[in-house]
Parts: sequence; C-alpha cells; structure tokens
Amino acid sequence: MTPSEEQTGDRARTSGSAQPRRRPGGRTGRTRAQVLDAVRAELAEHGYDGLSLDGVAARAGVHRATVYRRWRDVGGLLADVLEATTSDDDWQPQDTGSLLGDLTVLNSENLAAMTARPSIAAALIAASFRSEEAARGLRRLWEDRYARCEVIVARAVRRGELPPATDARRLLVAATAPLYHHLVLLRTAPDPDLPAQAARAAALAAFAGAFGEGSPAGGASR
Amino acid sequence: MTPSEEQTGDRARTSGSAQPRRRPGGRTGRTRAQVLDAVRAELAEHGYDGLSLDGVAARAGVHRATVYRRWRDVGGLLADVLEATTSDDDWQPQDTGSLLGDLTVLNSENLAAMTARPSIAAALIAASFRSEEAARGLRRLWEDRYARCEVIVARAVRRGELPPATDARRLLVAATAPLYHHLVLLRTAPDPDLPAQAARAAALAAFAGAFGEGSPAGGASR
Repeated sequence: MTPSEEQTGDRARTSGSAQPRRRPGGRTGRTRAQVLDAVRAELAEHGYDGLSLDGVAARAGVHRATVYRRWRDVGGLLADVLEATTSDDDWQPQDTGSLLGDLTVLNSENLAAMTARPSIAAALIAASFRSEEAARGLRRLWEDRYARCEVIVARAVRRGELPPATDARRLLVAATAPLYHHLVLLRTAPDPDLPAQAARAAALAAFAGAFGEGSPAGGASR
Repeated sequence: MTPSEEQTGDRARTSGSAQPRRRPGGRTGRTRAQVLDAVRAELAEHGYDGLSLDGVAARAGVHRATVYRRWRDVGGLLADVLEATTSDDDWQPQDTGSLLGDLTVLNSENLAAMTARPSIAAALIAASFRSEEAARGLRRLWEDRYARCEVIVARAVRRGELPPATDARRLLVAATAPLYHHLVLLRTAPDPDLPAQAARAAALAAFAGAFGEGSPAGGASR
C-alpha cells in the first residue's frame, strides 16, 4: 500500500515493465531520474526538514536553476516522487491462494516498508502533513494502491471464500488500517504478529458478512 | 479516543469532577488555564503554523516573559494542552448495553471530534508530526483513552457477548483504526456510515474469536 524502498528507489527506474513509460526519454528524462533519486536519498537520510532544492541539486549533480525552474519547491519535488512511484512501478499484491494469506503478505510488505531504516514511506507520510502538494500526491498513491489490491477480494470471491457483493475497499481498509494506526498515529513499537493478526481479524469479519454491500450499518443497538 | 472540543475546551476547566484536581489553584492555576485556552483557540483558528508564544501570550492577556519562562516553546505549550486534557477530563465511553452499540458511539464521538470545524483533535495530530513534545504528549493521550475504553470489552465479557480471554486493546484498535485511517491518512471525505460499519466489522471479528488471547496469528495459509 505504501511504496517499499525498492519500489520508490532503484526498481522504479530500472524496471523492465512492459507498461507504457510516461517518463520522457533523453536528457530531460535522465535529469528527472537523477533528481528524484536524490530526493529519495535526501529524504531518507535527513527527513522532510533536511530536504532542500539546493541539497537535491548538489546531490543529483544537476544545475540549481534547472531544479528551481522545473520543481519550484520541496512540495513539487515530493509530488513528483510520488507521481513517478505511482506511474512507473508494476507492483501487484501477491497471490498466495487464500484471502488470509494475501492480506497477511500485504500487511507484512507494508510493515517492512514502514519500518525500514530509512523508510521513504514513513518520510512521505510525515511530509504530507507539511506540504499540500505532498498530501495530494500521497492521496493519489493510496488510491492507486488500494485499487490494485482489489484483485485480492476478486480472487477470494472467485474461490468462493467471500460472497460476490463484498465491498473490496472497506475490507482492504479494515485489514490494513490497524498497522498504520500503530505505526503512524499511536507510534507504538511494531508487533511482528500485527500483520497476520490484523489480516485474520478482517478476514473473519468478511466471512461473517461485515463488508457485504447494503449490509445493515449496525445501528440496531443504538 | 481523541479529545472532543468540549473536553479540550471549557469542560476541562469547569468540570465538577470528583477526581483530585492536579492543577494548582490561585493565580498560577488561572494563568495556566488562560494560556491553555489561548493555545486551543489559536491552534483551532490558525493551525500549528500559526501558533506562536507571542500570539498565545497576547490572546491570553498574560505577560510574554511568563509564557516563555514556563512553556519555553510551541512544543511545550502543546504538551501541556495534552497533559491538561488527559488529567483533568472525566471522559468515559458510553454504556449502551451492547458491544456493537458502545463501539458505534465511540466511533461517532471520534468522527465528530475529528471533523469539527475547527478540530483541535485534528490540529494536535498534525502538530505531532512537527513537534517531538507534541508527539510524546499525544502518545500519552492515546494510551489514556484506549485504557479508559477497555471497560467496553470488560462489559461485553460480563454480558457473555465475548469470551473472557478477548484482547481488549486489539479489538479497540480494530474498531477505531479505519476511521482515523480515512480521516488522517487517506484524507477521504468522511462517510457518515463509517462509525457504525467499522464498529460492526470489529464486533463480528471479535464474536468469531479474532481477538482471543493466544489465538493463532493466522499464518496457516501462508
């Protein structure tokens, strides 16, 4: 759901994906790749507060004026990192053969991305509270990742694990939210069992019909 | 789970709680109350970026030197607002007579606190990404609120709704995390059905044994 180090780093640049590549080729494309790699490296090393256009230009070996003209400010750089992550990488959720397995692997990947040292994913989330451009970019990235994950629910429906009317997005949010709640909001030390536990709770809720479309909203006892 | 406007505002100051009051009385106590009210008002109106010791002193009608000496910086002010919220308010989760009802009301209160205009709760969460003191204070506040909510699970166990070995904290996080995930991280427009839906999903998972202590971590299909 969040970009892993690999996805935001080298893989996005070198991936041999057959999808159309939107990055312009030639010198402009190379400059962008150098600058975005420098942003990721600076962000990972110094966090949002240490990020500056001058520092990025120096690290990328690109002229300051070019960076200022094309990206304007730190928010512009972050937004472009997110855009590159979303459009260039070919991440798909793993197919383990079961809903529980798929959700557990997804949570494990998210935990690894968020607790890597340095974690670009965590730095981008923190930056989204500082820069409106970063916040917009991150919103698009979440949307893209949750959309890609809907196949997990579609596969479970095909296998007969879930009723066809299951609301994929609500199930995916239920499965993944506890991990982010701990790591980003509560800031509690990550429990290594959390990915599997949260996946299991969401799967059990789904099997019990919690995410059926048009299911009662649960107000009966209010 | 987060402080409501009422709890962080007038109620904390005027509450007739029978609990021992830790706030010192007399002029020092009045100064603190004036300053913390000013912090809440400035934060709500201008957000973290508009918060300054000078602005707080002016609004509170307290001498600048007093504010600088006692609270030092913006982080110190925020930490004290959180401390006052935690120690002075007598918030308890409502007892509706059912697990589903209790969790739904809890989520509804959290949604109201987070979407109030202005929302002090949302401002404090945003500030926690900027100030280490605010982050520490918020961590204590979350811990306090989740601890107070454990009675929801204890009541459900007493009623026979849940097995005695249910892990209260995991259940409470599962019930409340989706709301914060939408509001704080995904930043999607809040769905009015979300409090009830998330409560229902967590309750169904709990009834199915998802939060039983020592329950398998769900790795069976990996």
